[in-house]
Amino acid sequence: MKNKFKRVLTNIMIISGALLTLSISSLSVASTSDTSILSSWHDGSSKKVIVNFVTKVTDKNASSFVKAEDRIAVFDNDGTLWAEQPLYTQLVFAIERIFALAPQHPEWQTQQPFSQLLKGDIKGALSGGESAITAIVMAANAGMTNEEYASIVQQWLAKAKHSTHQKHYAQMAYQPMLELINYLHDNDFKVFIVSGGGIEFIRAFSQDVYGIPSERVIGSTMKRSFENVDGKNVILRLAEMDFYNNNANKVIAINSHIGKRPIAAFGNSDGDLPMLQYTSDGKGESLSMIIHHTDEKREWAYDKKSHIGHLSKGLKQAKTNGWHLVDMKNEWKTIFK
Amino acid sequence: MKNKFKRVLTNIMIISGALLTLSISSLSVASTSDTSILSSWHDGSSKKVIVNFVTKVTDKNASSFVKAEDRIAVFDNDGTLWAEQPLYTQLVFAIERIFALAPQHPEWQTQQPFSQLLKGDIKGALSGGESAITAIVMAANAGMTNEEYASIVQQWLAKAKHSTHQKHYAQMAYQPMLELINYLHDNDFKVFIVSGGGIEFIRAFSQDVYGIPSERVIGSTMKRSFENVDGKNVILRLAEMDFYNNNANKVIAINSHIGKRPIAAFGNSDGDLPMLQYTSDGKGESLSMIIHHTDEKREWAYDKKSHIGHLSKGLKQAKTNGWHLVDMKNEWKTIFK
Repeated sequence: MKNKFKRVLTNIMIISGALLTLSISSLSVASTSDTSILSSWHDGSSKKVIVNFVTKVTDKNASSFVKAEDRIAVFDNDGTLWAEQPLYTQLVFAIERIFALAPQHPEWQTQQPFSQLLKGDIKGALSGGESAITAIVMAANAGMTNEEYASIVQQWLAKAKHSTHQKHYAQMAYQPMLELINYLHDNDFKVFIVSGGGIEFIRAFSQDVYGIPSERVIGSTMKRSFENVDGKNVILRLAEMDFYNNNANKVIAINSHIGKRPIAAFGNSDGDLPMLQYTSDGKGESLSMIIHHTDEKREWAYDKKSHIGHLSKGLKQAKTNGWHLVDMKNEWKTIFK
Repeated sequence: MKNKFKRVLTNIMIISGALLTLSISSLSVASTSDTSILSSWHDGSSKKVIVNFVTKVTDKNASSFVKAEDRIAVFDNDGTLWAEQPLYTQLVFAIERIFALAPQHPEWQTQQPFSQLLKGDIKGALSGGESAITAIVMAANAGMTNEEYASIVQQWLAKAKHSTHQKHYAQMAYQPMLELINYLHDNDFKVFIVSGGGIEFIRAFSQDVYGIPSERVIGSTMKRSFENVDGKNVILRLAEMDFYNNNANKVIAINSHIGKRPIAAFGNSDGDLPMLQYTSDGKGESLSMIIHHTDEKREWAYDKKSHIGHLSKGLKQAKTNGWHLVDMKNEWKTIFK
């Protein structure tokens, strides 16, 4: 009972504070002119679409109302929540780690793609496509426990900086999207990340950067084994792909992890289309949005011709299906955190 | 803002009610003599162990304190949260469904294990072991969307009754365990089911029976495909096993879904041992408990010799590892809901 009592007291204090704030600010229904929400978004069509959607599904008296337990929102990560150019952050991490591990792996001097990579020929090393990338990522991310891996990723993120922006990667998160996550949380949505990136890589920073806890991160997985190491039972990361969370697999993973059809989905590339489609094919109100990279000055402008964040079919499907494109250049006041 | 205001008002009302209750009841530190918690548990060693553990990890001033976000508790389902004798509920469902589907499958009249099953020889049909059971479960649970499946399971649960107890299966849930889940929820734990049973079978009733939402249910999965059926994109259930969530796989699935090591784990059979071990090998306080079926009158008494809920190694490991056995006969005032 003691804990319950403490919690009640804390709640009262929090609520008193909230009430004070409410009595000072004018009590108004959320609207696009409300400056307290989505403040890094210009008053444009995207902000209007988002606010209208949230208002509809949270209005208890409307037929469009959705119970809090069913307010599921899913977000792609790379290119949707943070920058992905010129290389996925996890790939930069993996490449730097290959260099750090090279002294323990003399065999890499003659093995592709490692040999090219260690000679500094990153383009050549990655020219092997998916199999080369997988080899690099597996070698860099396996052979340790999950706890050790999280710690290595966190240490790297604390130091590493983006090659052109010279910001820490956590600062390459998009400020308008952080506000969108907060806005959805404030409206009792359950917000999940559904990424093609490694699940444990994202979990290493998702709480700190996005306010999203580990159990709401869905991503690609490597095989793991449960082993007794020095008398303690731990999960070891194996250098073998388990599940690649992209395209239709994103829908299957949403089903496995969440068990409900989302009512809101946000992506930026063709790999996100099945997830957007699954969301917009549900009964009732839904919101499927594509973050369109249109800002060559503040970020990058890319879609059809880019190998990273390739968006081609999505531009057509958005029109056919009534999905909304977010024009980063014209709709976002700020890009980065 | 309107919604936020409504929520604040609702919270104030809830809290006023809670305060009133608190001022009426005597304000005391949680103890085993507190009759408001775990009221179907006798004041015995199990209740004491549970309350001590929860008190330790929620006491902000103690070195044993665990932040709410890390208070992860995992529960096996069959034999831990509800009865599993004489057959797993999902198997009873599958068998009854085979009978219901038989007219559409004339080939089953000559195919094992279906032929034996349809002649009423359930023992014979199941004598094929895991492969026979898998064949029955796959045939009964595939070939439809997840939404259709959930609806079939719910309709079945609303009608079907346990063969000897003549109760609906939802009423075969253990009252003391429901109180335990509530007690953990009250103390800001995140409670997950980690079952060898089918994930969607459990999700069809987990919210109603246990108060556990779909995204906190982890179970075995069948392969699925994302298909366009009549112009709508749906997930179809395929008659092929994807992931069997038992033994060490329970630990791997906990990692995939939750991404944190639990601090409390509850199981009843040898298939739960890796999960209990993983939990008790964490840093800091942890609670690993085995529900021991000792009540031949009110439920069933079984362990080493039972094929369902087989518990043999677990009895030894509990002693070695300091895990706690719950003696259902002597520690539970009531068994069923």
